[in-house]
Amino acid sequence: MNKLIELFNQGDPVALGRLLKEVENGTAIGYEVLKHSAVKKGNTHVVGITGPPGAGKSTLVGNLCSGWADQGLKIGVICVDPSSPFSGGALLGDRIRMQELSKLPNVFIKSLATRGSLGGIAASTADIVLLMDAFGKDIIVVETVGVGQVEHDILDISDTVVLVNVPGLGDTLQTMKAGIMEVADLYVINQADRPGADESVRDLKMMIRELEKVGWQPPVLQTIATQKVGIKELMEEIDHHKAYLHYSELWDKKRQERNTKRLYSMIEELFSSKVKQYVESKKDIGQRIAFVRDGQLDPFTVAQEIVDGIISAN
Amino acid sequence: MNKLIELFNQGDPVALGRLLKEVENGTAIGYEVLKHSAVKKGNTHVVGITGPPGAGKSTLVGNLCSGWADQGLKIGVICVDPSSPFSGGALLGDRIRMQELSKLPNVFIKSLATRGSLGGIAASTADIVLLMDAFGKDIIVVETVGVGQVEHDILDISDTVVLVNVPGLGDTLQTMKAGIMEVADLYVINQADRPGADESVRDLKMMIRELEKVGWQPPVLQTIATQKVGIKELMEEIDHHKAYLHYSELWDKKRQERNTKRLYSMIEELFSSKVKQYVESKKDIGQRIAFVRDGQLDPFTVAQEIVDGIISAN
Repeated sequence: MNKLIELFNQGDPVALGRLLKEVENGTAIGYEVLKHSAVKKGNTHVVGITGPPGAGKSTLVGNLCSGWADQGLKIGVICVDPSSPFSGGALLGDRIRMQELSKLPNVFIKSLATRGSLGGIAASTADIVLLMDAFGKDIIVVETVGVGQVEHDILDISDTVVLVNVPGLGDTLQTMKAGIMEVADLYVINQADRPGADESVRDLKMMIRELEKVGWQPPVLQTIATQKVGIKELMEEIDHHKAYLHYSELWDKKRQERNTKRLYSMIEELFSSKVKQYVESKKDIGQRIAFVRDGQLDPFTVAQEIVDGIISAN
Repeated sequence: MNKLIELFNQGDPVALGRLLKEVENGTAIGYEVLKHSAVKKGNTHVVGITGPPGAGKSTLVGNLCSGWADQGLKIGVICVDPSSPFSGGALLGDRIRMQELSKLPNVFIKSLATRGSLGGIAASTADIVLLMDAFGKDIIVVETVGVGQVEHDILDISDTVVLVNVPGLGDTLQTMKAGIMEVADLYVINQADRPGADESVRDLKMMIRELEKVGWQPPVLQTIATQKVGIKELMEEIDHHKAYLHYSELWDKKRQERNTKRLYSMIEELFSSKVKQYVESKKDIGQRIAFVRDGQLDPFTVAQEIVDGIISAN
């Protein structure tokens, strides 16, 4: 077995960091450690933390991590930054906060710029979770920003989804549009010392009641992350939800769904590289693709030709 | 040729509506009209309008449409609602607004719930644009909500992207996180009668300056959609941008990129259905997939087996 993977198995964080890079770069050793991790089951609790920009998620994550570190837990943090496909990467303030976080014992932080690619976001985050789980992390926090598809991706990889909002950020009708509103497991109103916090809690509770959820009833908490207020309660509720997942057998079910999902996304990845090879190896196909580009041939006919060509050529 | 497609070619909006449904449902006739539309070039201007929930986008779209209708233009409106994958569909207020909109002459409205599926959003919106373009629409407005992936999709299908914000919705640093901030062609501060409008305009202009864009310099406009203030100026700037696209030859380049993109997404669609057929036809593969689901086999190895199996089986 590869030396790096041996060190990884021994719990060496440097090996984890290097192997995560290998996975990101799609190298052979990255592929090896992915296969290794997929069957080496850990027992990590994946906590997704999401909400609009400026809600104070990073500060909250910092507080949670320091609380968990105090309990002796091993923690992984994945910051998914769906910001610019152009500038990429996190803001300075976030980077400074992350540096502080990384000084905690047993905390490993991985930043991930999403850079626009569709399937890539979900797949690569899932792979990082896979490695951290196999590495032996007790909790993995996945922090994402924004509403929309990236937020839906977090549902696929998280056991517990925490939605962080601030007081007065839109009435219920507006926030309902954000989609994830209806599917979070825990709701947090952060910056709860700002005006309108109680109203926001009330609105959220009303929305949750109207959803008439069966099983887990999502609590609504207030926090002031900058003053470490409400963190203990949030940690307790995250634990409650974990207990509920085990009790309801959703814990195993979610893992099964993730495994199946990764299978199908891997099939897509493999086929994409076949398409690339095929197109590069056939001159006449290049010509047909150029006609599609220029609107002289329809993409549907040529797509069929390419798929048929790949399947019959081998 | 199919009777519906004949009517479509004659400009019958009922035929357009029915064919859009066929495309959504993936029927044979839907496929036929897609192929037909892809090579029947129209000359539509695709205007993407996006921004956070509650920014007043729908009212703004209504105003723009009525302005364009007055100019005798043929208009298509596509409302992409990335809201709930569960409840789906638009809010009551939006539905009422859309009903009013649909009474305008030569305006055709299509609502599209995104329902979570990843590639699906972009592909189906692109197909609707394709049909409306071939149908002879002069302008197609694509309205989306939220930040994140759905917003990035709008970049792929739009000629002109308008980002609508409201005063005081976060300082520049925060909004920068929303990604699309840096790539819009036109910035609108709506509800400009609210406090902080001038500051928001100033912040946006500063951000744009810092981006040091080459070519088109995005203007920042103020509107009060509920009072129809600033609409004429916005229409003019949208026209300016269209002229710029033609002048810079980006108009054709964007169309070429869209054609190529659709080719590759169609290849994926076709291959996905091959995978489905293959898995359903092979009992032992079903067993292997079950092992992956339960974490006894890694997804990467089995993905390879399936792709190899499909290619060699034919």
